[in-house]
Amino acid sequence: MPTLARLSGIFTPNIVPLDAAGEINEPELRRYTDWLIDRGVHGLYPNGSTGEFTRFTVEERRRVIEIMADQTRGRVPILAGAAEANVRETIRACEYYHSLGVRAVAIVSPYYYKLSPPAVYAYFKEIGDNTPVDVTLYNIPMFASPIDVPTVQRLSEDCEKIVAIKDSSGDLPHMIRMIAAVRPNRPDFAFLTGWDAALMPMLLIGCDGGTNATSGIVPEITRKLYDLTVAGRIDEARPLQYKLLKLFDAMIYSADFPEGFRAALGLRGINPGVGRQPMGEGQKVELDQVRDNLQCLLAEEGFTDEPISGCPPKSRVDPLEVSRIVDGVLAELKRRM
Amino acid sequence: MPTLARLSGIFTPNIVPLDAAGEINEPELRRYTDWLIDRGVHGLYPNGSTGEFTRFTVEERRRVIEIMADQTRGRVPILAGAAEANVRETIRACEYYHSLGVRAVAIVSPYYYKLSPPAVYAYFKEIGDNTPVDVTLYNIPMFASPIDVPTVQRLSEDCEKIVAIKDSSGDLPHMIRMIAAVRPNRPDFAFLTGWDAALMPMLLIGCDGGTNATSGIVPEITRKLYDLTVAGRIDEARPLQYKLLKLFDAMIYSADFPEGFRAALGLRGINPGVGRQPMGEGQKVELDQVRDNLQCLLAEEGFTDEPISGCPPKSRVDPLEVSRIVDGVLAELKRRM
Amino acid sequence: MPTLARLSGIFTPNIVPLDAAGEINEPELRRYTDWLIDRGVHGLYPNGSTGEFTRFTVEERRRVIEIMADQTRGRVPILAGAAEANVRETIRACEYYHSLGVRAVAIVSPYYYKLSPPAVYAYFKEIGDNTPVDVTLYNIPMFASPIDVPTVQRLSEDCEKIVAIKDSSGDLPHMIRMIAAVRPNRPDFAFLTGWDAALMPMLLIGCDGGTNATSGIVPEITRKLYDLTVAGRIDEARPLQYKLLKLFDAMIYSADFPEGFRAALGLRGINPGVGRQPMGEGQKVELDQVRDNLQCLLAEEGFTDEPISGCPPKSRVDPLEVSRIVDGVLAELKRRM
Amino acid sequence: MPTLARLSGIFTPNIVPLDAAGEINEPELRRYTDWLIDRGVHGLYPNGSTGEFTRFTVEERRRVIEIMADQTRGRVPILAGAAEANVRETIRACEYYHSLGVRAVAIVSPYYYKLSPPAVYAYFKEIGDNTPVDVTLYNIPMFASPIDVPTVQRLSEDCEKIVAIKDSSGDLPHMIRMIAAVRPNRPDFAFLTGWDAALMPMLLIGCDGGTNATSGIVPEITRKLYDLTVAGRIDEARPLQYKLLKLFDAMIYSADFPEGFRAALGLRGINPGVGRQPMGEGQKVELDQVRDNLQCLLAEEGFTDEPISGCPPKSRVDPLEVSRIVDGVLAELKRRM
Repeated sequence: MPTLARLSGIFTPNIVPLDAAGEINEPELRRYTDWLIDRGVHGLYPNGSTGEFTRFTVEERRRVIEIMADQTRGRVPILAGAAEANVRETIRACEYYHSLGVRAVAIVSPYYYKLSPPAVYAYFKEIGDNTPVDVTLYNIPMFASPIDVPTVQRLSEDCEKIVAIKDSSGDLPHMIRMIAAVRPNRPDFAFLTGWDAALMPMLLIGCDGGTNATSGIVPEITRKLYDLTVAGRIDEARPLQYKLLKLFDAMIYSADFPEGFRAALGLRGINPGVGRQPMGEGQKVELDQVRDNLQCLLAEEGFTDEPISGCPPKSRVDPLEVSRIVDGVLAELKRRM
Repeated sequence: MPTLARLSGIFTPNIVPLDAAGEINEPELRRYTDWLIDRGVHGLYPNGSTGEFTRFTVEERRRVIEIMADQTRGRVPILAGAAEANVRETIRACEYYHSLGVRAVAIVSPYYYKLSPPAVYAYFKEIGDNTPVDVTLYNIPMFASPIDVPTVQRLSEDCEKIVAIKDSSGDLPHMIRMIAAVRPNRPDFAFLTGWDAALMPMLLIGCDGGTNATSGIVPEITRKLYDLTVAGRIDEARPLQYKLLKLFDAMIYSADFPEGFRAALGLRGINPGVGRQPMGEGQKVELDQVRDNLQCLLAEEGFTDEPISGCPPKSRVDPLEVSRIVDGVLAELKRRM
Repeated sequence: MPTLARLSGIFTPNIVPLDAAGEINEPELRRYTDWLIDRGVHGLYPNGSTGEFTRFTVEERRRVIEIMADQTRGRVPILAGAAEANVRETIRACEYYHSLGVRAVAIVSPYYYKLSPPAVYAYFKEIGDNTPVDVTLYNIPMFASPIDVPTVQRLSEDCEKIVAIKDSSGDLPHMIRMIAAVRPNRPDFAFLTGWDAALMPMLLIGCDGGTNATSGIVPEITRKLYDLTVAGRIDEARPLQYKLLKLFDAMIYSADFPEGFRAALGLRGINPGVGRQPMGEGQKVELDQVRDNLQCLLAEEGFTDEPISGCPPKSRVDPLEVSRIVDGVLAELKRRM
Repeated sequence: MPTLARLSGIFTPNIVPLDAAGEINEPELRRYTDWLIDRGVHGLYPNGSTGEFTRFTVEERRRVIEIMADQTRGRVPILAGAAEANVRETIRACEYYHSLGVRAVAIVSPYYYKLSPPAVYAYFKEIGDNTPVDVTLYNIPMFASPIDVPTVQRLSEDCEKIVAIKDSSGDLPHMIRMIAAVRPNRPDFAFLTGWDAALMPMLLIGCDGGTNATSGIVPEITRKLYDLTVAGRIDEARPLQYKLLKLFDAMIYSADFPEGFRAALGLRGINPGVGRQPMGEGQKVELDQVRDNLQCLLAEEGFTDEPISGCPPKSRVDPLEVSRIVDGVLAELKRRM
């Protein structure tokens, strides 16, 4: 019988600060961990997509959890990304993270190859049968093999250790279908959305929380949006959802993921260092413009000063231009999928 | 200056009943019109996708509006689908429907060819400059050229006669972006969602209403979901949204659109006749099964008796099986796009 | 038993010239018909996608065939696009075009709605059973419901009047699968490719010919590529395929279809007039640049003079820039689908 | 100046045989290496997608190359898959494989995240500037960030060490565009197709060879198709391409990749062992049926006996049924992407 409470609230998928040599910047990662907890996030979610888990080695992924578990010391629960090259290696990671005291692991569906639903089921079933720690399924069809509704339902019925799904599809009816299929038999099973752009409506139709990259940058807003929404204060929550979407769009669509988030994090006073994916000169120039734009958005919220070059008056950022960028990048993303 | 109130509420995209010869069944269409108004829909939306406008001739499309305008006699507003082969023909339809007293027309973005945003803009601008009646943009990227956010924004700024958008993408952040881009300058501009699967959350983030095919079959539920949602009674609205999604999925994914809706309409006592798109024997057998399933769902709501063969006990319909069907058909739909 | 030879060779999907009032320019359409026949195309294919059949009225589509059948007077076979709003109207068009003496009709799969394979089968079966004239299936999954391999196979077995398929998917293995599935039982069944970008390889793996929009603009090249390829003169054909692709890319991806083809046709001395889809000022400026680019490409082939502004030296057109445009537009097209 | 000949011919992306414990089966891998060389493949391509590089650890990937380089002893060139977690690790792999004497490495575009063209360029530029061994770009947009034409062109101009591209898109016009953009400036740059379904036409329009998974199973056929095609014996090559497509379809679409290839390899007398991706009971039953089907196809070619249960008479395998499976699975694949 499950003895732990259902996962809920905002879990932050954190960026890993790097030092000048491109190695994990442990002091800054510790400082960032405290910074997030101090600003009210309910939990931490290292080694997620925002945490660029695929760009680290096996050893580095373990080191990230070690540092954060040590620094957190139980103040908030940790959801540790644990996907490795194959089932055996992934189970080993589950065992290790369990020994570090994490609340649960999150395991992305197999990626690179696009697997069929029975193969996705078999993968998670093998893990669910052998893990010592609770498992959160991670569905991100943009990047990995999709986990469809019948697969979630079967896994929830067959594996007590599988206790939640994090869904980053952003597909609201899909979330309703999952909840309708799973909750009657597994009231302890949690549904977390990874799509900040729809956090409020996802919570209103039944989600328990979110793993939202914005909460790593503006935890104050993401947390407040969560609180107002679960309190049923819809009219106050709505403008925050609009604001969060504006920030989310600016960070996610303005540069190769997660460079927009990295730039914004620097503006909040945490030094993320330079990412491991190389950038050309053109990209760096563009990222400077993105940073100025983000600085204006963050200055609007009082989180930072305006850039020296100033910000556009009034609406500060031309929404038409932002719309054009978002639409263009959405097209690009679709093209790459 | 716009003098009319913003479009709002539930507009029903109605099926056109046909007689044994495959012609418009005028008496049944008149009876259906009354049936819908009696059950509380706020408006009617003939010649929409559910109304299979592409399968009728020019003359027949006009006849549908004539009959329904005559039968309605102003009891509720009519939003008349007015897309024709080209701009000139579409403007003629606008003029004619204006003469019949409709509240507004709805014009789908150009289809077959997939046009660029500037071409979509030019198309609607030409119409907006020449229409005597208010125009609702109709965005349904599944079937027609998408209308992106900057295009909606520009059209809202440049054409006073364009007063609303009906969006059937089901994309919630897209809806937020549109509202954020348009509402500050055009408070009279209305946002209607055509995606029943997300009606409640769409209303909660700012939509004014919906053009929802379910309201042609179970207007009692769609209307009640609308009322509870706008009243802020979220906990009562949520289970209705789940129920509506179950019905919507069963009607939209169980057969070639809109045959599931046609079958359900027959179960409600309106005789839709046989559709114009031919069906093979295998499809007819499958449709009989779909009809039985729908009859069970409708019987659960007290709208009809159970089928003679009875319904599954308890949960009556296996949600896992339904999930499998939905997932399979979503895959098929994506394949066809 | 089929008595006519298998369809083969290059059939030209022609643009319909319009006059200053936007009406069919009959004299220019007659002149264009002669121009094409004089340059060696094997057949004509009016009311295709290039012919913008959806932008004309029922009466206009009939008028196009009347004019071209009259002008051709049997010099080359005509493949008449015959898709109308529904099966009954389409069969009427078949009957009418049969009375005008066309060799066959071509019928696009149902569009707007995306139909399942059984529905696509039922649609063509009904037509195949009732048409007095030979029918060519038209598969263009980019715009209409796809016709999959089993459907083509079943239709070829069940309907003697269905004698060919025109496939614009550009998918070479798909073409091989169709030929493998159909040819053993129906040696009279023809396979035509609508994808100029792969004409040579399509012919080499077994196609009988093509319905290629480039043949309406540079019939000399398309015809020569066909002749060299079927003669097995691969080394001479290859550079022509490269040249045709360059022209095809420049016409199809540089503007909303078929404006690039319309612009190029004007450069060849046929006056296409102004299209029915409105254009904004920005689009017109861009189209002028496209026209200059096309003029340089056509001048390279000796089909026209260079533009007054001259052409780029050496390679004349920057292939990197063209590549960027093509890639960008392909992304756009995918986004719109 | 490049001193080595352009890569050409058929490079086999080999499966890695596993033993009962799921570890690399070194003796069988050595035997398989000899088996392939004896059957005439021009080169070997370990750690490709068929080689399931993502399912092995860093150390295992290195071990695969060590074993095969040692066993090959220069009889044929080796193209070693060298993608690791990030640029630094990938360059280390290049250095190590260089020390083992491989002809070149092949590096897949970054996957999981879908990167923009400038980011893809920056990634390969960094590698190209620091690798001691020749590099083959690996474009497989189905699984990884696409490498577009301008990016290939820029990399070919900026990095002498980048000497080839392996393209598994199967997009023939795309291949023509790449060759047209690159070959004039880099006559030493090679174009290899990874799409067996179009091997003959790809060679005819200018490719230098292929990295084809079928060559790991039926090297006799793939090699013969290559030889006939480059000799211009089109009429003899064509039926082989049809045959290869039938085998390819049966292996690639009948089970989760690369299980169909693994099953077929066992039928050829090489023991591949059980794959690392778990399978459920239903999948195993299906795979048995796939194996019987493959055995019939291989028996037709004289490569093995018929299964004990026998094969279907005459055409042995119902092409309609195969078509249905292929179409269904293509839909599934699209859904997962």
